[in-house]
Amino acid sequence: MPAERITDSRTRSERGVSRRHLLTGGVAAAAGAAVALGGDRAARAMVAESESGRADAAGSSIVPFFGAHQAGIATPPQAHAVFIAFDLRDDVDRDGIRRLLVLLTDDAARLTAGRPPLGDQEPELAEHPANLTVTFGFGPRLVERVDPGKVPSWLGPLPSFGIDRLEARWSDGDLMLQLASDDPVTLAHALRMLRKDARAFTTVRWVQPGFRRAHGTEQPGATMRNLFGQLDGTVNPQPGSDDFDRLVWVDDAGWLSAGTSLVLRRIAMDLDAWDELDRPAREQSVGRTLATGAPLTGADEHDEPDLTATNAIGLPVIPAFAHIRRARTGDVRERIFRRAYNYETPEGSAGLLFGSFQADPERQFVPIQRRLDELDLLNVWTTPIGSAVFAVPPGCAEGGFIGESMF
Amino acid sequence: MPAERITDSRTRSERGVSRRHLLTGGVAAAAGAAVALGGDRAARAMVAESESGRADAAGSSIVPFFGAHQAGIATPPQAHAVFIAFDLRDDVDRDGIRRLLVLLTDDAARLTAGRPPLGDQEPELAEHPANLTVTFGFGPRLVERVDPGKVPSWLGPLPSFGIDRLEARWSDGDLMLQLASDDPVTLAHALRMLRKDARAFTTVRWVQPGFRRAHGTEQPGATMRNLFGQLDGTVNPQPGSDDFDRLVWVDDAGWLSAGTSLVLRRIAMDLDAWDELDRPAREQSVGRTLATGAPLTGADEHDEPDLTATNAIGLPVIPAFAHIRRARTGDVRERIFRRAYNYETPEGSAGLLFGSFQADPERQFVPIQRRLDELDLLNVWTTPIGSAVFAVPPGCAEGGFIGESMF
Ligand code: HEM
Ligand code: HEM
Repeated sequence: MPAERITDSRTRSERGVSRRHLLTGGVAAAAGAAVALGGDRAARAMVAESESGRADAAGSSIVPFFGAHQAGIATPPQAHAVFIAFDLRDDVDRDGIRRLLVLLTDDAARLTAGRPPLGDQEPELAEHPANLTVTFGFGPRLVERVDPGKVPSWLGPLPSFGIDRLEARWSDGDLMLQLASDDPVTLAHALRMLRKDARAFTTVRWVQPGFRRAHGTEQPGATMRNLFGQLDGTVNPQPGSDDFDRLVWVDDAGWLSAGTSLVLRRIAMDLDAWDELDRPAREQSVGRTLATGAPLTGADEHDEPDLTATNAIGLPVIPAFAHIRRARTGDVRERIFRRAYNYETPEGSAGLLFGSFQADPERQFVPIQRRLDELDLLNVWTTPIGSAVFAVPPGCAEGGFIGESMF
Repeated sequence: MPAERITDSRTRSERGVSRRHLLTGGVAAAAGAAVALGGDRAARAMVAESESGRADAAGSSIVPFFGAHQAGIATPPQAHAVFIAFDLRDDVDRDGIRRLLVLLTDDAARLTAGRPPLGDQEPELAEHPANLTVTFGFGPRLVERVDPGKVPSWLGPLPSFGIDRLEARWSDGDLMLQLASDDPVTLAHALRMLRKDARAFTTVRWVQPGFRRAHGTEQPGATMRNLFGQLDGTVNPQPGSDDFDRLVWVDDAGWLSAGTSLVLRRIAMDLDAWDELDRPAREQSVGRTLATGAPLTGADEHDEPDLTATNAIGLPVIPAFAHIRRARTGDVRERIFRRAYNYETPEGSAGLLFGSFQADPERQFVPIQRRLDELDLLNVWTTPIGSAVFAVPPGCAEGGFIGESMF
C-alpha cells in the first residue's frame, strides 16, 4: 500500500509538478497536484506528505530506468552513491563491449525496478530499490574500440591545472557506473551484481563511495551540506527546466544526442586546516554565510549575490578571491550541473566527489575550472586528487541497451 | 514542528510502549498509546505513523544520552554505525584518562542531543542527530591504568578458536567508541569531533564502518538482512524485557554494575563462494529459509524451530551442522544480545561486524563460539579476521561522565 502511494507521489513529480513548487507553494499547490493525480491514494499521499514533510520515503520508490535520458542525472540525489570505473580487458573487442553493455543494461533495469538480475543468489537484497539508479559513462578507450570515429573531441583527461595533485588510482577509466540509492544495503548488493557481471570483461580501476544526508533527515530538495559545513549546490540549473535541458543534454545528430558528460573530480578537503580559520574568514572564502548559505550581500539562500556591493572601507563584500565570484560567469551557456557527494575514508581523509554533468565539458566545465585554478581562496584547503571524464550516452527503451547508438 | 512530533513519538516508545507492541497491536494499540501521550501532537504523530508505516522518521529524533545504561545497546539499531578503537599514548595516566573521558562524555552528550560540541567549527553538521548514539567501551589496558584491581577477569582477548584468522589491525584497543545514527553526514561529523578531541591522548588503532537498511526502507523492527541475504537477528533477547535485562546488564556491586560487555568480531564473508551453493544448501547451512527466515520446520520467521523433526529418510530437517542448532543452548543464561552491522570495503571484501552485548562474555559468548568453532557449516564461508572485547560501563547522569564508577 505505501509502495503504491509512494510510487504515485514520485510519478507526480516526474510529470513536471516540480518538487520545489510543491514545497514553496505549500498545501494549496499540493492540493492542485493531488487533483491532477486524482483519486483516494493522492489524498492519502498528501496527508502523509504534509504530516511528515516527506514526499517519497521508504524503500519501494522506483526511478524509471528506461527513457530518453539516463536516470541518476536529473534524479534528486539519493543519500548514497558509489562510482566505479572498470578497465576493459585487452581481448574485449567491439562485440565484447556490446555484450557487456547488454548484460549490464539488463542487470540495471532489473535492479532499479526492485527485481533481482539473472543469477542473483540474494534476490531479497534487491527488493527495496529506494530510488536506485545506475548511470553509465564511457571513457575514450571504450568508444575507440567500438568506433574510433565516434570519440567526442572532449573525451579524455582534462587539461592539467596548477592545483591538481592527481593520482592514477582515482583517475580515468574505460567504463564508469554511477550507482545511487537511498538504501546502503540495496546499493551494496547492486554494486556487487554489476561488478560480478563485468568481471569477465574488465578489471576494477577504482571504486569511490559517497554520501549525503539520509532520505528524510531534511526536507526534500534541501541543499546538501558538504564536510566543510557549507551548503553546496545552491546555484545550480533546476532539473526539468529549459535551462537545465539546454546545459546538460547533448543536442546534435550524433550518437551522444540526449546524452551528456560527467566530470568526476575527487577533491580532498583539509578539514583540520579549515577549522583553524574563524567563521568570517570561512564565509569570505566562498562569499556565502555558513548558517543559511545566503550570499554575504543577502539574507536568504536563494538571494542573488550582489558582486558590486562594497563595505564601509570600499572593499567588495564578496571578495575578489571568493569561490562564488570566481565560479560565476557572464556567459549563460558556460554553466554546469553539479551533483556532488561527500566522501570519507576510515583513515580519516575526507572530501568531495565533485560530479558535474554538462553537454560539453570543454566549453562548460574547463573555463570555470580554469578561473578557479587562477584564483579561488578555497584552493588553500582543497586539492583535486582524482579526475575523470566520461561520455554519458542517452537512455534507452525497453529491449534496447545503454550505448546502442554508438554501434 | 515535525521535530517535536517525532521526538514525542520516540519518547512514547522509550516509556515502555514497545515498538513491537505498536506494530502487532496496530492502530488500536497505538490509539491507546496516543491517549497516554495526550494532546494534539500525539494524534498527528499517529496519523503520520499509520500513513507512512514509520514511527520516528527524520533527522530530529533524539536518543537520550544520560541514563542508568549507555545508549546504543537497547536502542533500535540505526542505519549506520562506525566502531573506532584508540590506543592510549604512553604518557596518559589515570588523571589523563579521566580528563579524556570527561571531554568525550561532554562531546557525546551534546552531539547526541543535536548540539555542537565545544569548539565545533561546523555546528550545522550537528543539527540533525537522527538517533545518534555514542557508546563507550574500555579495553584492559585502560582499566588497568586507572586501577589494576578493577579489570574484570574476562576483559582481554578471547580464547583462540580454530576458525580464527585474526589480524592485529582489526583487533583489541584501549578505548572503543560505537557511534551510530540514521544519517551518514551526522555520523561522519560526530566521528570527526570525537577523533579530534581524543587526539592528544590517543592514536587511532582501527575504524570499522558498518551499515544496515536505511531508516524507512522497511517497517521499524524488521530483522536486518546480512550480505548473504539472510535475516540476521531473529532469535535475540528483546530490549525492554526482563530476559534482556538479565542477560545484558551486569548486576553486581562493582563499578561495571548496569554496564555490560561488547564482543566485536570482524567476520569476513566469502560472497562468491556462498553464491556457488544452491538455495536449499544455503538454507540448510543455517536451518532457516532465505525468503522469510522461518525455521526449516516452520512457516513464519518467529516460529519455534523443531530440532527433533526428521524428513522422509529419517535425517533431521534442521541438520546437525546447521548454524542455529549449534548456536542454541539449553542454558537460558548462556545467551547474548546480537547487534550486528554489515561491512563492505571499496576493494570488494564484505562481511559482518558481529557485535554482541552480554553481562559476561566468558560465561555467555565463549561457549557459543566454542560450539560454532567445533561445528557450523557457515564456517566454510565465514572467517573471523578481527576480535575485540570491551568493558562497557554504565550510563551516567548529567554532570557525570562515562566511566566515573571506575575512579
Ligand atoms: C571541494 C571543492 C569545492 C567546494 C568545497 C565547493 C563549494 C562551493 C560552495 C559552498 C558554493 C556556494 C553554494 C552553491 O551555489 O553551491 C559553490 C558554488 C559553486 N561552485 Fe564550488 N566547490 C568546490 C569545487 C568546485 C569546482 C571544482 C567547480 C567547477 C570547476 C565548482 C563550481 C561551482 C559553481 C559553478 C558554483 C556556483 C557559482 C555561482 O554562484 O554561480 N566548485 N561551491
Ligand atoms: C558471519 C557470521 C555469521 C552469520 C552470517 C550468522 C548468521 C546467522 C543467522 C542467519 C541466524 C538465524 C537468524 C537469527 O536468529 O538471527 C543466526 C542465528 C544465531 N547466531 Fe549467527 N551468524 C554469524 C556468526 C555468529 C557468531 C560469531 C555467533 C556467536 C558466537 C552467532 C550466534 C548466533 C546465535 C546465538 C543465533 C540464534 C540461535 C538460536 O536460534 O537460538 N552467530 N546467525
